[in-house]
Amino acid sequence: MSATLDLARCVVSTPADGVPKAMLHEAKRTLINVLAISLSASPAKPARILVDWAKAEGANERATVVGSGLRTSLTNAALINGFLAHLQDYDDTHFPTVLHPSAPVWPAVLALAESTGASGKDTLAAFVLGAEVGCRVSMSVHPWHYDAGWHITGTAGVFGSACGAAKLLELTDAQLSDALGAAGTQAAGVREVFGSDSKALHAAKAASNGLQAVMLAKEGFTGPEDLIGGRRGFWGVLSAAGHDEAQLTEGFGTRWELANNGLKPYANGVVSHPIQDAVIQLRNAHGLSADRVTAIRARVHPLVLELMNRPEPRRGLEGKFSFQHCAAAALVDGAGHDAQFSDARVADPVISVLRAKVSATVEESVREDEVHLSIELDDGTLVETHVEHATGTPENPMSDAVLEAKFSDLAGEVLSADQADRLLAAVWALDEAPDVSDITKLMVKAQVPA
Amino acid sequence: MSATLDLARCVVSTPADGVPKAMLHEAKRTLINVLAISLSASPAKPARILVDWAKAEGANERATVVGSGLRTSLTNAALINGFLAHLQDYDDTHFPTVLHPSAPVWPAVLALAESTGASGKDTLAAFVLGAEVGCRVSMSVHPWHYDAGWHITGTAGVFGSACGAAKLLELTDAQLSDALGAAGTQAAGVREVFGSDSKALHAAKAASNGLQAVMLAKEGFTGPEDLIGGRRGFWGVLSAAGHDEAQLTEGFGTRWELANNGLKPYANGVVSHPIQDAVIQLRNAHGLSADRVTAIRARVHPLVLELMNRPEPRRGLEGKFSFQHCAAAALVDGAGHDAQFSDARVADPVISVLRAKVSATVEESVREDEVHLSIELDDGTLVETHVEHATGTPENPMSDAVLEAKFSDLAGEVLSADQADRLLAAVWALDEAPDVSDITKLMVKAQVPA
Repeated sequence: MSATLDLARCVVSTPADGVPKAMLHEAKRTLINVLAISLSASPAKPARILVDWAKAEGANERATVVGSGLRTSLTNAALINGFLAHLQDYDDTHFPTVLHPSAPVWPAVLALAESTGASGKDTLAAFVLGAEVGCRVSMSVHPWHYDAGWHITGTAGVFGSACGAAKLLELTDAQLSDALGAAGTQAAGVREVFGSDSKALHAAKAASNGLQAVMLAKEGFTGPEDLIGGRRGFWGVLSAAGHDEAQLTEGFGTRWELANNGLKPYANGVVSHPIQDAVIQLRNAHGLSADRVTAIRARVHPLVLELMNRPEPRRGLEGKFSFQHCAAAALVDGAGHDAQFSDARVADPVISVLRAKVSATVEESVREDEVHLSIELDDGTLVETHVEHATGTPENPMSDAVLEAKFSDLAGEVLSADQADRLLAAVWALDEAPDVSDITKLMVKAQVPA
Repeated sequence: MSATLDLARCVVSTPADGVPKAMLHEAKRTLINVLAISLSASPAKPARILVDWAKAEGANERATVVGSGLRTSLTNAALINGFLAHLQDYDDTHFPTVLHPSAPVWPAVLALAESTGASGKDTLAAFVLGAEVGCRVSMSVHPWHYDAGWHITGTAGVFGSACGAAKLLELTDAQLSDALGAAGTQAAGVREVFGSDSKALHAAKAASNGLQAVMLAKEGFTGPEDLIGGRRGFWGVLSAAGHDEAQLTEGFGTRWELANNGLKPYANGVVSHPIQDAVIQLRNAHGLSADRVTAIRARVHPLVLELMNRPEPRRGLEGKFSFQHCAAAALVDGAGHDAQFSDARVADPVISVLRAKVSATVEESVREDEVHLSIELDDGTLVETHVEHATGTPENPMSDAVLEAKFSDLAGEVLSADQADRLLAAVWALDEAPDVSDITKLMVKAQVPA
């Protein structure tokens, strides 16, 4: 009896054709999201440090780094792309476990697909299975593992990246069990590093280590009999307070965890998302501009005031924890991307003036993902809306249209609008594509000819 | 208050000249040992898999891999050399914690020294400080952490490799604290993988990840305020059952943990080492050969029979857990290296016949590191010895002469005797050398000209 081998068998025995069309569509959506936020993150300082490190170390040109276009080894590409995908805390979230499934898995799968010439459909299916495993390993240890201080995206993520990669490299179940041994014993990442550059390193290393373990196991490198279930293994050591074995494989291939995965419309914590939704709705419906607004009033869940009552944020990061700033930036910019939480945007005079006009009162009956919001204009007009479930919650998934707008905004920070459109089209067409080359070519900032 | 920053300050404020000459000598001894076992391990299958992986991924030629002579990136060289240094379970052991200090630290320090041209003395001092930190982080969590299932060489090792590398790259204390954040959140390795190729991957990744974290932090990559002591940090998450903060820095720079570090004379567990010592003593003193021996009788500590009573081992690995095989191989070969525990050596007819003549009786007063042993010859002669403390224990450290013999045996499996001698001489002269190039050139199997 080996839980690890059981899981490996589930992965190996599920063919690409066994992945439902709806899940392939979800996979495309997660890739659009990953590419958007990775492009937006690519100019950030820690990302440039990693790229410079990879350049100094050197590598054969086997796979492409998002944004910079550096071509490097498979594991280095997976490392840097994993870092980019998580750097803005703007990636997808698996609701039952707070795992971010895509950041560790997509970079491993994409690097391998680029190098092997895998078909678009096989690539999508490999991602779906990798994400499935990341989610299931997470569910098998949630909540004990996260409560103990682990960052589940780093720890469970490495199992996901290994399974995604193993699917493309066609490992046998015994080889995959060995790979999960080599990968799983590297499961790491503590929550203490939240707020530092090292947090995104968790996703980076999960992507890279899982991929490397698969490459080694394919050649005969061994792991233990049962890394996950063995006495001194993943469950025993990293989730000593409890685990739920059935979550690992029950119904594998018949229900899919990407169905419980959400995309974020705003680059900050979910508590303020109903407010941001409501402001943007009213702004767009009524063509509102800041100079006409005299008050923004919200009736909210108590957590909004507990966690996000910060009327005068001083830096970008504080803006992420200020419902006043979230509302004001949403009205002025119509968005809540990382760009809306820069130091400059927090200091912006128009936003600062408007921020002072934002208020909230607690209403006990309002749920966490709900808000009642009204905006008063200088002519006395009152416009109102009720957001029942914020965008990106299970009851109100982000629509493809909203996702496309997010993509255009973020990819447009680095790519021309035309290139961004073509990249988006390439992802939507991925299940019919002979390989991933359209994507890996277009996800790179075009070089200006000298 | 940051435990991590306190530790970083200790490391940064200790100059190379502050490392006592006796510790530089110990550092040379550990390097001789590491080179010996790494050379011997270099032809093994999983080592070749790693080398082939590194070749496929490619890299700039910045540092040398022991044995194969592959020149690759700093982090890949640290990775593979860390793997080689631990693969035979034949590396040094820090007695208070069972940490293997050298395998994670030497590969990081040596790769960096090769690439930066650091002096021999600075290189030795950087190793001493890295090993000191590995040991101290281990002592701060021992025994709770190991008992929880962690392989301390993987987890504490990454702090050691980071500090060794940081010394050579001259990080500030703030940079080193960041590096320890990025490195320490990658602390990983569970004991479940013991017995598989993935065990040595712990030392490999500790070497490589610690080195990489230092390279990144030097450029401004950040970690948290206090990775070690923070609520969700190393102590809180990986040693929840307890920790001892004082061990981290108390007396740093005045007492040295390499003084509590031992080298192994035999490539298996310590329980049989007194027997192996005694047999080899008598063999060499009396010129014994197997055909003349009619009985080998030992009076031993109870653990010998509990753990190692295996009169008919079938495979090499079982030979490591057979006191009968250990004694017989010691008499025939005069050694207990990995070569004595091959499948072929276990099946060897001369050793098999002799093995049947080995017996042991328990004597309660005999300590674990002690044995009374007699050998009876075909003419009725009885030769006897009493080993009070086996070689490699704190009371009986391995002498330089015995270490040199181990080196000659193991390095001689891969290098010519002449090259091995020159490599040994280069290590003994390292504190006077302008750089490490003599070592990195000589630790490579000479290519036969085409």
